[in-house]
Amino acid sequence: MAGSTFGNIFRITTWGESHGKGVGVVVDGCPAGLPLEESDIQKYLDRRKPGQSRYTTPRKEEDTVEILSGVFEGKTTGTPISLAVYNKTQRSGDYSAIADCYRPGHADLTYDMKYGFRDYRGGGRSSGRETIGRVAAGAIACKILEEFGIKLLTYTKSIGSVEVSPARFDAGQIPQNPFYMPDAQAAQEAVSYVEKCMSAQDSTGGMIECVVTGMKPGVGDPAFEKLSANLAKAICSIGAVKGFEIGDGMAVAKANGSQNNDPYEMSPEGEVIKLTNHSGGILGGISDGSPIIFRAAIKPTPSISREQSTVTRDGRSIHVQVKGRHDPIIVPRAVVVVESMAALTLLDMMFASIHSNMENLVRFFKNC
Amino acid sequence: MAGSTFGNIFRITTWGESHGKGVGVVVDGCPAGLPLEESDIQKYLDRRKPGQSRYTTPRKEEDTVEILSGVFEGKTTGTPISLAVYNKTQRSGDYSAIADCYRPGHADLTYDMKYGFRDYRGGGRSSGRETIGRVAAGAIACKILEEFGIKLLTYTKSIGSVEVSPARFDAGQIPQNPFYMPDAQAAQEAVSYVEKCMSAQDSTGGMIECVVTGMKPGVGDPAFEKLSANLAKAICSIGAVKGFEIGDGMAVAKANGSQNNDPYEMSPEGEVIKLTNHSGGILGGISDGSPIIFRAAIKPTPSISREQSTVTRDGRSIHVQVKGRHDPIIVPRAVVVVESMAALTLLDMMFASIHSNMENLVRFFKNC
Amino acid sequence: MAGSTFGNIFRITTWGESHGKGVGVVVDGCPAGLPLEESDIQKYLDRRKPGQSRYTTPRKEEDTVEILSGVFEGKTTGTPISLAVYNKTQRSGDYSAIADCYRPGHADLTYDMKYGFRDYRGGGRSSGRETIGRVAAGAIACKILEEFGIKLLTYTKSIGSVEVSPARFDAGQIPQNPFYMPDAQAAQEAVSYVEKCMSAQDSTGGMIECVVTGMKPGVGDPAFEKLSANLAKAICSIGAVKGFEIGDGMAVAKANGSQNNDPYEMSPEGEVIKLTNHSGGILGGISDGSPIIFRAAIKPTPSISREQSTVTRDGRSIHVQVKGRHDPIIVPRAVVVVESMAALTLLDMMFASIHSNMENLVRFFKNC
Amino acid sequence: MAGSTFGNIFRITTWGESHGKGVGVVVDGCPAGLPLEESDIQKYLDRRKPGQSRYTTPRKEEDTVEILSGVFEGKTTGTPISLAVYNKTQRSGDYSAIADCYRPGHADLTYDMKYGFRDYRGGGRSSGRETIGRVAAGAIACKILEEFGIKLLTYTKSIGSVEVSPARFDAGQIPQNPFYMPDAQAAQEAVSYVEKCMSAQDSTGGMIECVVTGMKPGVGDPAFEKLSANLAKAICSIGAVKGFEIGDGMAVAKANGSQNNDPYEMSPEGEVIKLTNHSGGILGGISDGSPIIFRAAIKPTPSISREQSTVTRDGRSIHVQVKGRHDPIIVPRAVVVVESMAALTLLDMMFASIHSNMENLVRFFKNC
Repeated sequence: MAGSTFGNIFRITTWGESHGKGVGVVVDGCPAGLPLEESDIQKYLDRRKPGQSRYTTPRKEEDTVEILSGVFEGKTTGTPISLAVYNKTQRSGDYSAIADCYRPGHADLTYDMKYGFRDYRGGGRSSGRETIGRVAAGAIACKILEEFGIKLLTYTKSIGSVEVSPARFDAGQIPQNPFYMPDAQAAQEAVSYVEKCMSAQDSTGGMIECVVTGMKPGVGDPAFEKLSANLAKAICSIGAVKGFEIGDGMAVAKANGSQNNDPYEMSPEGEVIKLTNHSGGILGGISDGSPIIFRAAIKPTPSISREQSTVTRDGRSIHVQVKGRHDPIIVPRAVVVVESMAALTLLDMMFASIHSNMENLVRFFKNC
Repeated sequence: MAGSTFGNIFRITTWGESHGKGVGVVVDGCPAGLPLEESDIQKYLDRRKPGQSRYTTPRKEEDTVEILSGVFEGKTTGTPISLAVYNKTQRSGDYSAIADCYRPGHADLTYDMKYGFRDYRGGGRSSGRETIGRVAAGAIACKILEEFGIKLLTYTKSIGSVEVSPARFDAGQIPQNPFYMPDAQAAQEAVSYVEKCMSAQDSTGGMIECVVTGMKPGVGDPAFEKLSANLAKAICSIGAVKGFEIGDGMAVAKANGSQNNDPYEMSPEGEVIKLTNHSGGILGGISDGSPIIFRAAIKPTPSISREQSTVTRDGRSIHVQVKGRHDPIIVPRAVVVVESMAALTLLDMMFASIHSNMENLVRFFKNC
Repeated sequence: MAGSTFGNIFRITTWGESHGKGVGVVVDGCPAGLPLEESDIQKYLDRRKPGQSRYTTPRKEEDTVEILSGVFEGKTTGTPISLAVYNKTQRSGDYSAIADCYRPGHADLTYDMKYGFRDYRGGGRSSGRETIGRVAAGAIACKILEEFGIKLLTYTKSIGSVEVSPARFDAGQIPQNPFYMPDAQAAQEAVSYVEKCMSAQDSTGGMIECVVTGMKPGVGDPAFEKLSANLAKAICSIGAVKGFEIGDGMAVAKANGSQNNDPYEMSPEGEVIKLTNHSGGILGGISDGSPIIFRAAIKPTPSISREQSTVTRDGRSIHVQVKGRHDPIIVPRAVVVVESMAALTLLDMMFASIHSNMENLVRFFKNC
Repeated sequence: MAGSTFGNIFRITTWGESHGKGVGVVVDGCPAGLPLEESDIQKYLDRRKPGQSRYTTPRKEEDTVEILSGVFEGKTTGTPISLAVYNKTQRSGDYSAIADCYRPGHADLTYDMKYGFRDYRGGGRSSGRETIGRVAAGAIACKILEEFGIKLLTYTKSIGSVEVSPARFDAGQIPQNPFYMPDAQAAQEAVSYVEKCMSAQDSTGGMIECVVTGMKPGVGDPAFEKLSANLAKAICSIGAVKGFEIGDGMAVAKANGSQNNDPYEMSPEGEVIKLTNHSGGILGGISDGSPIIFRAAIKPTPSISREQSTVTRDGRSIHVQVKGRHDPIIVPRAVVVVESMAALTLLDMMFASIHSNMENLVRFFKNC
């Protein structure tokens, strides 16, 4: 089944695998008249590119995006925007070890089970390079959301047991450290922890948090197309994500209603305000205009150089060490992927929310 | 936007609100030739019906399902199966209090923001009665999955801080206690805890876990249509769910790769086996044939009789006590809803997985 | 595969077969705040109900619609509208003849091929009664389109070789004759022709035309989602339709560019006007604001009492006479079905056209 | 709204406009294990490439396809296949005349109405070059269909009033003449007719017919997803198509039931055979295994060098002559586009037909 398309109205289709000719995305349903140039997209791609610190793979990939269609004289035309990132160096390498065995924690086994064989070079379609298309499209979604006054702030919330302290939270710190943490001290502790993992030939997981401000109320649908449900799908569609929570999240399982409900009050300006935001900005699947807050748990990089038990394609039990230098932690490079998937979801659902009431529609069709 | 349809190939569309003429679902894409009668569906509905214990609302609703189409001489015909549960007693009641104010933790405010007004009787479409259609359709999905050898076991994992003990886990206990817990002692402790919440005019949240056995490998897609992503959406589309996790879930954020990877070994019978199942049965979005395990965090019932701050539709800050007897905990009745949504997702994705390789397809079209 | 859903944003799902408990439709994505009562829908259903003249089946079916959900205090709530028409008289009848053989021109054979068996009572899901759900939903679509200033006029263009004369075209005549022809004289000739078919134990086909006025420009998409393509699908999804054409239609195959192109001119009021409308109101798949004109060819009723060759389920060649009184012509009752499918398509595509340019979107989200 | 995606299970997304960097398509949902190389696709593209005769535009475009992803070691991997045709010569040209006025019969006006502006170079997205992606994807669909034993034969049925004679029908002639007609004599007459149009600075329309043999029975759905309905949409989504008919098509409007019904008989081998095929291989929306036959009416090329009335963007009535050499007839190059769209539809619907009965499904999941 076709599984490389995301979104209904603002819809993206990604393609490409780790070691093919390139990776890319077709963005369909982008409104006409948006100023767009390659640099708008490049700056998002640069946030996920490898080789930025000693905690990401040292592979040098420039990941330069090219706009192939859908933009004319600096503005989107309303027709599909095709974006491609070509692989500069067609890496051949020696994949015989990977080709013949199933790396623990990777999708090698399940690809073989599903398709009968697989492109074993660097993980093929299950490679992190698959996210390049998501980020390129997400950059456009973010640009449109900004025109509507909506902003996303995404960062690393924790690495192993090193957690950002709410008291020291400083958004300005995010781009200042290799882990995109909004807390300089936590980032420093994370450095020590990740170094320790590296010396132990091991890797670590972490948590990413995203806060959306300026959100319009009324976005999302009552039943299956809840805004929260679509965010859950979007975020859990990122390779390494094993958990998703919104607002108080998993903690609600231990909470009482009297703590968890957000009481309302009228502001002096006559607007309804919520005194707390345990719900994370969504009630009954519909945004209430307060900040949307959610988190994603990212598993540790499965590629570790420590020895592991596994089996070969032809059915022998063996021990394997995954060679090469790999990211000891996926989290920092996943921050912009989480932000992109959230932006794509929010935008698509805003577009879908336009039709919810007659009065607005009649006004729209009268004016346009 | 149309948000009441779930699934692509096995597709359901639900309708109905709390105090209308009834609620129902149209199940489209059900294969022909499945033996089906109302009792197959009724037994699932009975698991969510109210009034089963003193910990669920004492409203007496029989919730009797009627098959209106799609079944002929005891077998499904391949055409849409329309299922309806009519409201026996058209409850009128006095909703003036609810109509004029926004109950904290409910969707009252967001419905007004989205639609300009709302059906305020008993929550309208945001009522728990919306899940009747999901469960009725889920019963059919479960029946089909059973024919493929797939079973779902769903239960309450925790209530407040009372947790099921792995050591005492006993599936036979699940239908024996009002909380559907697989642990008699935990269920007893939960009784005390919930009673305490009730006397405090409060409510409590909890955690639901689902284990799928007999799963086929190769189900799910690499990019956006990961099996895990679709489960996340399905489960987070249930009203009270605030978090979803698969396998080790949120805990992976603190884990190391060497712990989190599941090593492989050849079984004496020559099959690949996983020595652990931290991944919860899904790798790279695709099932590996081992049990799928996931959890959902359910928030405490927002309707509590304790006094809360809120505002009226016309902009006054007030205090409100939500009258009437409500479930002090949503969890037990949500167990079968979680199971239903999981079954619908698994079945739809199995159907979508059929086309993944040429060899199988050629064989299929040759034989049929 | 689920095939009973039509539309993306304004989406309907129909259910029901000829001799089950009833037929119905769930309308999802209807904006909130539309005044709606059963009589709005009933008047469309009355246009297709049987027994209106001696040229339609004399079966007495009241086909009374009931609104089961989605309307509160006389207005749509934005949630699914469930509409049902229950079969008053559960007809049992003797279907043994039909059950055992494949009626020529009917779907009996293909249903058995697809599903392995079929509900043989009155055609089951392939019965004309399947269109009740389409018409009920179409009534709502028409009502919304009217609020936007858009009207559909649908009528019988020809029956056999009796054709409406453009010179005598009079829309006022449409409801005045049993064939819904906008030409009294043609209607009279059609009476004679149909009588002749009836005495010959035969049936006849005909052509339906639909003209949409007040259409907004800019509706429809460049590639696969052309407005014309979606109209083609909608109309060809009606059981008896074997051809669809828009504007000059099939005749373009013989035309020259100089005849077929519609030249433009500025009106005295400074608006672009087309001097002709060979294109039928759509260019490049997008509406230009001029009337949309299309036609559908309807095949003769397959049920004829004349003897025909056929085979039985168990493989014997036989001769069959389809007993009972049947419509000698499907066309008149199909007029409102064509109108309904067109309205559903236009509305859904108008909703999809909202997102085509940034300027409008920014204005929309600023105002709402 | 995203309108550049076609198909549900075998799904394609096209991109690109006339004078951008290139055009292409992403084919998602292609089963793994299909042998595929660029030449498989190139031979279909070559059938639509310009400059093949004096009756197509003499522009020299090589239209060489490149596979960018989804194929590994000569076989499809089951992941998206990205195909691109880069524009070798970035044509700049002088489009000032076109940019400022609306060419009759083109989509210039409607694009401006929809998007507020347009890429005026060579028609932008409404250019015939948009069909390159369709044909590239169609080549893959045809290859898969062939593995299932299904073949499509597509040809020009008529040009102006020159029609192929059934008596002289010879499929071997199709690639032998510039018009792809299965009748050498008709092709010769067409040459004269088209020459006449050219000297009159005019263009002509024509009719394309497609015959599908080896079709599986049981493909297509009862209600909205009829095979005929989806073929209608697919074919009418091709730019110049103004009419679509299946089997006897428009002629059914004049037919009687006794002529139009296809009688059945048992063959000596004990198979059900249809004595005629007026229905064109589809009954009730479902294939019956006999040949599928349909036709598409193609309008005359709108670009003619004869003078026409039109208006400018700034509101002046003018006369225009569309300069440059254009195809005097679209039909021959559209033949392979019609075939491609038909193949894409058939394949997608075959994939969707797999789930129609339990017995087959249980067998499938047992075996795989």
